[in-house]
Amino acid sequence: MTDLYYHPLCPHSRFIRLVLGEFGIEPNLIEERTYERRREFLLMNPAGTTPVLVEDHAPPVPGAGTIAEYLDETCGLGLGDRRLLPDHPVARVEVRRLMGWFNHKFFAEVSDHLVREKIYRRFMTADQGGGAPDMDAVRVARSNVRYHLRYIGYLIRSRRWLAGDTLSYADLAAAAHLSSVDFLGDVPWAEDETAKSWYARVKSRPSFRPLLADRVMGMTPSPTYVDLDF
Amino acid sequence: MTDLYYHPLCPHSRFIRLVLGEFGIEPNLIEERTYERRREFLLMNPAGTTPVLVEDHAPPVPGAGTIAEYLDETCGLGLGDRRLLPDHPVARVEVRRLMGWFNHKFFAEVSDHLVREKIYRRFMTADQGGGAPDMDAVRVARSNVRYHLRYIGYLIRSRRWLAGDTLSYADLAAAAHLSSVDFLGDVPWAEDETAKSWYARVKSRPSFRPLLADRVMGMTPSPTYVDLDF
Repeated sequence: MTDLYYHPLCPHSRFIRLVLGEFGIEPNLIEERTYERRREFLLMNPAGTTPVLVEDHAPPVPGAGTIAEYLDETCGLGLGDRRLLPDHPVARVEVRRLMGWFNHKFFAEVSDHLVREKIYRRFMTADQGGGAPDMDAVRVARSNVRYHLRYIGYLIRSRRWLAGDTLSYADLAAAAHLSSVDFLGDVPWAEDETAKSWYARVKSRPSFRPLLADRVMGMTPSPTYVDLDF
Repeated sequence: MTDLYYHPLCPHSRFIRLVLGEFGIEPNLIEERTYERRREFLLMNPAGTTPVLVEDHAPPVPGAGTIAEYLDETCGLGLGDRRLLPDHPVARVEVRRLMGWFNHKFFAEVSDHLVREKIYRRFMTADQGGGAPDMDAVRVARSNVRYHLRYIGYLIRSRRWLAGDTLSYADLAAAAHLSSVDFLGDVPWAEDETAKSWYARVKSRPSFRPLLADRVMGMTPSPTYVDLDF
């Protein structure tokens, strides 16, 4: 049994859901509102962030990067040629560079702002920092997303997938973060056709289906969110 | 030959310098002022951050976390019992959790603010964002460092090293970030004797010596910075 503590629009949780999907693991999803700072959750992950993976008879595995490395170490070889963190150390550098790019840089510049301001703050109490979105943060994130989209387009013009010839953690991290932003209608897809066609390829994978079914109370996803031919 | 593009007070560069020291690798250090956004450097690391490791006949390895994983994969087994990322996947989870804690959380909450405001901005032009330090950011960082120090003390009361019985990447990451803050005189060591005694142990390692010799133009380190019995 695999439990995943997550939030539907948390981009790091989405990355791990895609990874688990590619491994053929169907987790038991447990929604965690990190801003409530639940004591039992903080004991599993003192950093207080989603996702946290819990397997039978093993200590909790907190954090998207750590979970991805753990799953590669424990199940990676089972994927054979489809391994998401490739075998060679040099190829792994490029996958980790881009996984870090999206999990840290894109998150700090884009997806953290948008998800916090437009989703989390709507459900937080005033004490927790809830309230109307800070539109300055939203505007900065909407501006930043454009150069990340161009960077994806730039990479995909010379490679089949983001980090090389095969699908990797880099693609799943990038698509996960973009999917949270796309739910909110804030990805200017028309600005880069190459990036858009890469995203359409990731979005059509079976591992992506559960993400497209996500709904957050009171929120309607953008019209293109579930459309595979957006 | 191993080149390391770094900045003397960049905490991520310091982490990798400690790691290389533990591996017995003496890098050729090349100072990089990331805020100058030098084209050749951006080609090696499009994220524009230090450190970047360059070995003969191999592509550049950018980013502290990626370099640490790469060195473990290429040289880790050579350390035998002293391997800095332990063999077992569950033990690796704890090391990676804490390595991430310091490289991302401590950086975002403490060391990034202090190094940027008190060091980088002094050398930046007005166009690059230079000028007097933002004292609000400095105050927030000085307040945040206290709970991280308590967390180190809490862990060390039940373990010999941060992530378990042996020295690991977790200790080197934590000590690297703290050393940048200590250079600036902003670690309230008196608040946690356990954390202080752990830091003294890391600081007395041979791998730490080159860091204690660092000087930044026009800056004098805090009186306790080089003192092993601070």
